[in-house]
Order: sequence, then C-alpha cells, then structure tokens
Amino acid sequence: MIELTRRATFSASHYYWNDAWSKEKNEEVFGRCARRNGHGHNYTLEVTVSGNPDPVTGFVVDLKWLKDVIENEVLAAYDHRHLNLEVPEFADSKLVPTTENIAVSAWKRLEPAVAKAGGAHLTRVRIYETPEIFAEYRGDR
Amino acid sequence: MIELTRRATFSASHYYWNDAWSKEKNEEVFGRCARRNGHGHNYTLEVTVSGNPDPVTGFVVDLKWLKDVIENEVLAAYDHRHLNLEVPEFADSKLVPTTENIAVSAWKRLEPAVAKAGGAHLTRVRIYETPEIFAEYRGDR
Amino acid sequence: MIELTRRATFSASHYYWNDAWSKEKNEEVFGRCARRNGHGHNYTLEVTVSGNPDPVTGFVVDLKWLKDVIENEVLAAYDHRHLNLEVPEFADSKLVPTTENIAVSAWKRLEPAVAKAGGAHLTRVRIYETPEIFAEYRGDR
Amino acid sequence: MIELTRRATFSASHYYWNDAWSKEKNEEVFGRCARRNGHGHNYTLEVTVSGNPDPVTGFVVDLKWLKDVIENEVLAAYDHRHLNLEVPEFADSKLVPTTENIAVSAWKRLEPAVAKAGGAHLTRVRIYETPEIFAEYRGDR
Amino acid sequence: MIELTRRATFSASHYYWNDAWSKEKNEEVFGRCARRNGHGHNYTLEVTVSGNPDPVTGFVVDLKWLKDVIENEVLAAYDHRHLNLEVPEFADSKLVPTTENIAVSAWKRLEPAVAKAGGAHLTRVRIYETPEIFAEYRGDR
Amino acid sequence: MIELTRRATFSASHYYWNDAWSKEKNEEVFGRCARRNGHGHNYTLEVTVSGNPDPVTGFVVDLKWLKDVIENEVLAAYDHRHLNLEVPEFADSKLVPTTENIAVSAWKRLEPAVAKAGGAHLTRVRIYETPEIFAEYRGDR
Repeated sequence: MIELTRRATFSASHYYWNDAWSKEKNEEVFGRCARRNGHGHNYTLEVTVSGNPDPVTGFVVDLKWLKDVIENEVLAAYDHRHLNLEVPEFADSKLVPTTENIAVSAWKRLEPAVAKAGGAHLTRVRIYETPEIFAEYRGDR
Repeated sequence: MIELTRRATFSASHYYWNDAWSKEKNEEVFGRCARRNGHGHNYTLEVTVSGNPDPVTGFVVDLKWLKDVIENEVLAAYDHRHLNLEVPEFADSKLVPTTENIAVSAWKRLEPAVAKAGGAHLTRVRIYETPEIFAEYRGDR
Repeated sequence: MIELTRRATFSASHYYWNDAWSKEKNEEVFGRCARRNGHGHNYTLEVTVSGNPDPVTGFVVDLKWLKDVIENEVLAAYDHRHLNLEVPEFADSKLVPTTENIAVSAWKRLEPAVAKAGGAHLTRVRIYETPEIFAEYRGDR
Repeated sequence: MIELTRRATFSASHYYWNDAWSKEKNEEVFGRCARRNGHGHNYTLEVTVSGNPDPVTGFVVDLKWLKDVIENEVLAAYDHRHLNLEVPEFADSKLVPTTENIAVSAWKRLEPAVAKAGGAHLTRVRIYETPEIFAEYRGDR
Repeated sequence: MIELTRRATFSASHYYWNDAWSKEKNEEVFGRCARRNGHGHNYTLEVTVSGNPDPVTGFVVDLKWLKDVIENEVLAAYDHRHLNLEVPEFADSKLVPTTENIAVSAWKRLEPAVAKAGGAHLTRVRIYETPEIFAEYRGDR
Repeated sequence: MIELTRRATFSASHYYWNDAWSKEKNEEVFGRCARRNGHGHNYTLEVTVSGNPDPVTGFVVDLKWLKDVIENEVLAAYDHRHLNLEVPEFADSKLVPTTENIAVSAWKRLEPAVAKAGGAHLTRVRIYETPEIFAEYRGDR
C-alpha cells in the first residue's frame, strides 16, 4: 500500500456566524472572524489516495486524473467563492466553514469520485487555512 | 546603508469591479475576480527600512517598533477585512484592490510613521497575494 | 474524528553533553553539538488535537485557546531560553535536549492542559529543529 | 516510541515508458512524461525511523549516521543520475520510475541498513517529486 | 513605478559539457553535472514587469496575460524537456545550460513579447535551480 | 551582468547586551534578547556575486567554489557557535550581533575572498534570522 498525495490551492472568503446567537455572542465566540463582510484565505488542500501501484504504469492513480477530480469536485465549488454565501454545504448557516468542517466537506465531495474510479481509496484530506493551521480527516473510522 | 525587512501576514477579502462598466465588461476584464461576494487571500507583506545600524544597539530600527507600526498602520485596517467594503482607500470603487494598488496603499500608510520616527527610511514594500504573485513598490522615484 | 493542528515557533539555545563522560567522549559522540557555549535553532512546534467538531461552532477546539495553551505551557518556558540552563526538564544534565526529547517534553507539558479542557485529546506533537530534521511523538501508545 | 525524520534532496532525470507499448500508447498514457530524452526534478526524500530515545544520548538514532545511510544507500545511486538509464531497479524498463515506485525502491535500499544497525526501525519513506506531489510508503503492512 | 512578479515552475533535464574538451576535462570542471545522461531540476522562474498601474483596472499588466506569455515563450520550450537536446539556444553545445545562461535565455524569450504589448517593461528574470541557487538578470544595463 | 546567489544555513546562539548599561537598561532596550544565557536561530545566508557568465563554462563563478568560500569564511566561524562568546567581531561586546551587524560582518568576511578570485564581485549579502526578519547589505555604496 502506497499513499499518493496531490496538493492544490484555492482562494475563498468566509466568516463564522451562528444565526441562533446575538451579534454580541457571535463576536464573543468567533472574534474578528464574525465580521459579516467576510475575510479570506489561500487554502491548501492535500488529497491522499492509497492503493498498490499498477505493475504496468507504476501509478496508484493517474495524477492528471486526480488533478481533474480535485478541480471538478472541490475547486470548481470553492475557488474564488464566498463559502458562506455560495457553497451549498455552508450556505444558510447550515455549517460553519471552519477548517475542520471544510476538511470533512471536501472529503464528502471527493470520496464518491475516487470510489467510483476503483483501484485506490481516498484515505486522507488535509486543509491548511494558513501555513500555521490545518485540519486532517481520514474518514469515518 | 543596510536594508532591514520585517514580514507580516493578513487575511482579507476583495473583488475587482469598475462601477462604470457593465457586469459583462467587468467579467470579461476581471474574470472570476469580478464575483461580487468576494474571495480572499493570505497576504504576506514585507516592509523594508534602510539606514545605518546604531553603533550602540546595532539596530537600523527596533524590530518591535517596526512590528507595531505594521500592526497599527496596515494590519489594523486590512486584516480580517473586506478591502472593497471596509478599507477607505478602496471603498466606493475608488481604487481596485489589486496587488499593485495594495502595495502602493500600504506604502502610503507606512511612510509617514517611519519618517516621523527619524533615522531610517521606508525603501520597499512588497505584497504577496499568493506565493506565485507579488508586487513591489519603492516609492515615487 | 478530525485532527486539528496549530504550528508555533520558538528560538532557543542548547548543547549536547553527558556529565558522566569526558570532554573527549562527549565530542566523539556529539560532535560540534558538544560545544559548551551552546548554539541555537528556530524550532517549529506542531501541536495536534483530535476530536469531533462541535456542531454549533464547527470547532474541534478554539484555536485561540490552543494558541494560549502552547504559549503558556511550552513557549513561555522554551522561547528565547537556553534549554540546558533554564528549562527544568533538561537542567543539570537530567535529559539531553535532542529533538526527540524536546518532542516528549513538550507533550508532557501540553497533555494535561488539553485533557483538563475536555472534548479533544492531544494526539501528536512534532518538533522541527531545522526544516530537515523533525521528531514526532504520539504519546505512550 | 518516537518517529525521527531526516530530509534529503536529490536531482535526477526520468521518463515514463513501457517497452511493450507503441509510442502512441505511451504518449496517451504518460503524456509529456513519455518524451524519451527525459526531464528532471529536485526530489525531496524524507526518511523516518522509529524507536525509543537512548536514555544516555537522547538519540533514537544518531542523525549523522542516518545522513550517511541516506547518502550511501539512496543518494549515491539516484543523485545527478538518469533513473531509467543508470539505476538498476528502473533500468531496462523493469519498473517505471514514478514517485510511488521511487518511494518503494528507496525503502528497499534503506530498510536493510537501518535494520542491521539495530535499535530503531525504518517506518516511513516519503518522496516529493514536486512540492505538490508526494508518495509515502510504510512497508509491507 | 511598480514591479509586478509572477512565478512559474518547470521540470527539465540538463548536463554541462564542452565539446572542445576531453571527458576528463569536462568532469574536472563540471563534476557530476558532466554525466551525459543528464539529471534534472524543478526550476522556478520569476518574471518581473514594471510600469504604472492602469488607473481603471489597477493592473500593471493583466496577470492572466503574463501567465500566457510565460507559458508560450518559456514553458512550452523548456518544461518536460532536455535543455541540451531539445532547446535551440542550448542545443549542439552552443551554450551551457547553467542557471546563469537560462536566466539570460528566458529574458531573451520574454522581452519581445512584453515589449510588443506596450505599457510595461520586463525588468527582471530570476531562475531558481534549487531553493539554494538562483540567478537573476535585469537586461543589458 | 548576472547576479548569482547561493544560500547556506547556520545555527548559532547570541544575546543582545551593552556592557555600558545596567541590567535594567539592557532589558528595557533589548527585551528577552538580553537574557545572558543566550538563545539561538537557524540563520539563512544568501551570498550574491555579479559578473558576466564565462562564455566557455557558462559560470559567473563556480558554485562549488562559492560554497567553499561561504563554508571557510563564514560558516566555519559562525555555525554551531555562540556569536557573542566565540566570534571575534562580536566578542567582548565590540558589536551587538543583530541581523544588521551579522550581514555587514559576513560581507567583510566574504568580500576579500571573492575579490581575490577575480572575475566576479560580491554585490549582496542577505541574512535571515527567521523567515520573518532579514537584513541585506550591498557594500559601502
């Protein structure tokens, strides 16, 4: 078993807000992240798939294919977007777009596409909000 | 003469938009940067001051002082903000918050504070929008 | 389960020395690291906690709280210090401040504070002595 | 148990090619990587060994020794070489030098040398072909 | 005047060789870089153009246009190529593809395309062969 | 004219202290940098030489030679040393080992060796104390 990882980046806006709370409570819990115009990040996404290298090609998966999967399943929805306003899983305050929740959401977007292709399995999604902060999800183990 | 540089980061949202143009024209020129909810970046700001090291302290400037100047003059206004909506020099479509214009704007914010302190001069401001794109301004030379 | 990581840096001095050995033996084993005036590094510390995101906040832990824990439990003791001379666990030659031992020591400092807060668990501490050398500890498993 | 990692770099050429296929089939599967003059990368190799720190030295292994092992077992064979033409495990189209296969091959080169030394075990080999693509192997688990 | 820089990467093979010299002389001067199968690097190219930001767009140049110029003028010729065998300016031992010569050659490729567009001028080309080695050319000043 | 740069790293200890001042005054000016056991950094040194590439070799200078010059003139004196206690230019409180002063001191160490070799000139020395702080010296211009 080899773990093969491809990294991609996207730029997005977000804010942290709970509709059930007052403005004061939101600011107390979320600090400056609660400002409603939003702020943004250059996110780095690492997608790891695991499997055995094909004896003929030496590929766990074709990295061009993996690039397309990341582009189609995640970047098309997240890149140059406001996560709270334009991305279904975070819209209408359904889910706060924290690094943790973005990691799980990216997993849910990627997992079916990787599974459908067969051969390799999605085993890790890591999201860096900044070089100092990252969240990692390995599925519902 | 020594150039001494301090780096800082801030996270902000922006979009590119010219009120005098149609939506179509904005999208043609600015592409996905024209989306009105905005997107964001982790910007890196490099501030360079030049002077001779003080013979007693060995300092061109005190780096703690420089950190405070950057914090007070730039980060307090830009960090965790939407540049188009909350920062005076870009508000009301006065100025498109491109990397180039952010570099000049940060210079204008920093230069008086450095000049007032005496001794060293502001000689360079560099802004990275991403690790792949940066703008540098050395004043009106 | 999500792993959430926060990175911090500190600058410290150290040397490698065993009081039970001669100077020659120390130099043979530890090379230039045995020089008694010490040398130093910009260490990078990665602290990982694991848990489920709170359904309301989206947080595994509050990253501002985690920053304070790292500051209070590790950086206050290690940053801008000489590890062999000023840090209890390494003083009096009790423990050689290798990257391996710093990782375990940082774990011991962080674990009770994370455990006391409840909710999430400390699951990983990684220390980079340089970008080329790092040690990782995941507790006494 | 501590994991201790040392990073090294090497520069090498390679191409992807299957002798059993036509030129067209090779180009279809491998794209521009199939060009027969080869292209190259600055590879980064991370070698992780695991064990308990020696109570006297604080070492899982001596990092100078680990540097020599990496140099002798991997870099001497791979650095400034054309992997397809000069490295036995990839020569004569035996194995396509993908990042995945290089990770396994480096493991096979390193594992006996680490095992022979005793004390610590090789537990992880990671190869970065670029900062965006890496493969990781943890042995035949 | 603002300097605006865009970074790109390419992977290429090369060797150092002077046809007028013996194998021994080549190896003496060029060391392991003289091995004739070649080795390779992930090169990073920084292209800097200077001008005044357009008052309407805020652009010194359109960065999408600059990306295309870099792609068309340099990457199409250098990326996934063997510089000595496939790139006209280095072929037939006309020019040794050192970092210095690649910087000048990239300048010569980029300068006419930037000049033709008008407005901004090419003012700097920097090439990193590795993160530790880079060459910079600012034209025939 | 091409600028060719080689980067190197060294690990050293230092403190900031002025013998003419009281302990209180030192702590007021230098903060935690005044702690007398010292602390340390992984410094990064960038050395830039300028000249025309040799038409036969393509070299501004031989980078192996430049590596040796950096090793012999700077790293042998600074690496794994306490700058205040073991390096002549900083010893006995002659000069505070700030990043600014280290840049000038490294220049003075490198310049004669580069000048003696002929052909290229030392044109820039940059020292990073951390990734966030660096000083650059271009000689007594």
